[in-house]
Amino acid sequence: MSQARLMEGTALARRTLETTAKRAAHLTERTGQAPCLATVLVGEDPASVTYVRMKRNRCRAAGIESRHVALPAATTTEELVGVLRTLSHDPAVHGILLQHPMGAHIDERAAFEAIAPEKDVDGVTFASFATMSFGLPGFVSCTPGGIMRLLDEYDVDPAGKRAVVVGRSAILGKPAGMLLLARDATVTYCHSRTRDLSAAVREADIVVAAVGRPRLIKGQDIKPGAVVVDAGYNAGNVGDVDFDSAAERASLITPVPGGVGPMTIATLLEQTVDAAARQTGDRGV
Amino acid sequence: MSQARLMEGTALARRTLETTAKRAAHLTERTGQAPCLATVLVGEDPASVTYVRMKRNRCRAAGIESRHVALPAATTTEELVGVLRTLSHDPAVHGILLQHPMGAHIDERAAFEAIAPEKDVDGVTFASFATMSFGLPGFVSCTPGGIMRLLDEYDVDPAGKRAVVVGRSAILGKPAGMLLLARDATVTYCHSRTRDLSAAVREADIVVAAVGRPRLIKGQDIKPGAVVVDAGYNAGNVGDVDFDSAAERASLITPVPGGVGPMTIATLLEQTVDAAARQTGDRGV
Repeated sequence: MSQARLMEGTALARRTLETTAKRAAHLTERTGQAPCLATVLVGEDPASVTYVRMKRNRCRAAGIESRHVALPAATTTEELVGVLRTLSHDPAVHGILLQHPMGAHIDERAAFEAIAPEKDVDGVTFASFATMSFGLPGFVSCTPGGIMRLLDEYDVDPAGKRAVVVGRSAILGKPAGMLLLARDATVTYCHSRTRDLSAAVREADIVVAAVGRPRLIKGQDIKPGAVVVDAGYNAGNVGDVDFDSAAERASLITPVPGGVGPMTIATLLEQTVDAAARQTGDRGV
Repeated sequence: MSQARLMEGTALARRTLETTAKRAAHLTERTGQAPCLATVLVGEDPASVTYVRMKRNRCRAAGIESRHVALPAATTTEELVGVLRTLSHDPAVHGILLQHPMGAHIDERAAFEAIAPEKDVDGVTFASFATMSFGLPGFVSCTPGGIMRLLDEYDVDPAGKRAVVVGRSAILGKPAGMLLLARDATVTYCHSRTRDLSAAVREADIVVAAVGRPRLIKGQDIKPGAVVVDAGYNAGNVGDVDFDSAAERASLITPVPGGVGPMTIATLLEQTVDAAARQTGDRGV
């Protein structure tokens, strides 16, 4: 009985990666140097190892050089900061991705801030958060950036609409709300302390679920005709939205998997080529 | 027929300044050096001249050294950045206030970013915005910081409440919303593109008006019992809220003048002493 149209992230990500690969090839030809993304991984958490491998494979497929720095789990914050500073100063590296979350002994924020803003293609630094928030040029956090691309692809203009972001993490909920605000949505942030979540979500023309709680948002919470973006990704390929019931009321909805997820890596690679173009002075790419 | 209790910023600011003066005296005695705020003014805009004079007078009254740098209107961004970098490196200066807005030929953002975050007692840098947004230690923008102090003073706990911020400027609306979010409010940002402002404001347990449009928000927009904070300051001492009609429905309301306004300078001076204490290693102050 699903009525909503699917927002197909897999297909959009594929097209984005094709364009990115063309730009990377062009840039390599013009400058004699391929765009290069450095990935940094501390420890051997299996999920993190898998994510990094996926990102590196996608880089290579797109003609982006992938340089990997694997650090032992016992690496200190100071050592990690040193590695990130060195990469920040290395002219052969255009973008830096620090895989997170990291071990509890690492000061994650200190590590992020050691990434030069012009190489912060994952959009994790204070500077990137502020430029997103103020609508200034800069890199966006990859998942929120991917969400905005999906909305654009499906002709959803946030201006004047009520957008409700459920979740307020530093790299997902908060920047997603700020990007929607910069595009003139009336934005509400909901979270674990929100009293009547269903009532708040029912106000939304655009719902962004980004909280990591399986099927938290049900169809009855969705205003008929709303656009539903599910950035949740929980065990068993389940999103934060109860897909079946929500799809009966939404006009557009992202599937999980195959919605927001694939756009994250596509945005990362696109921003890596952007970074390389800026750093090599090749703005025509 | 006013029923709301007044949130008396003038009185709270006076008490805050008294405490700040005591801390400044203590710090001066312990370190042999008074806390020092550098004010930087480009050009001679009469309102800006007045604001800077007020701030300097308050500094002196609180035992905070005031160092003033007056620059000609024709100062370039580059020259201004140079001045701010020098102050950022000067160990005798603990806080820096760059009076704004500045002439259109100045890249305001580049100037703000030349202020070292640890001296950004006016809370204008990217780093300060991000630390406010992520609930991390750092300086807050002075007016939003003053608003939070007022709420605390009147035992308004934002946790779980609906807060609506009307306005989204970089130094007022956006950080005010982020500070409320960090204190667990469910926060909605409204602005010029919001479609039904009255309906959105009526959802609010806490309204922060920060848009600079005289009497934009009327009593009929206020949910009975709401807390109304008017950070607007328009010609003729008029706020963004129609005080008389709003006071009939609110439980607490800030007057204009005498509400939010006085808290701004109080927060600035308090943060200057905080900065001096940190920079001189005197954390006990």
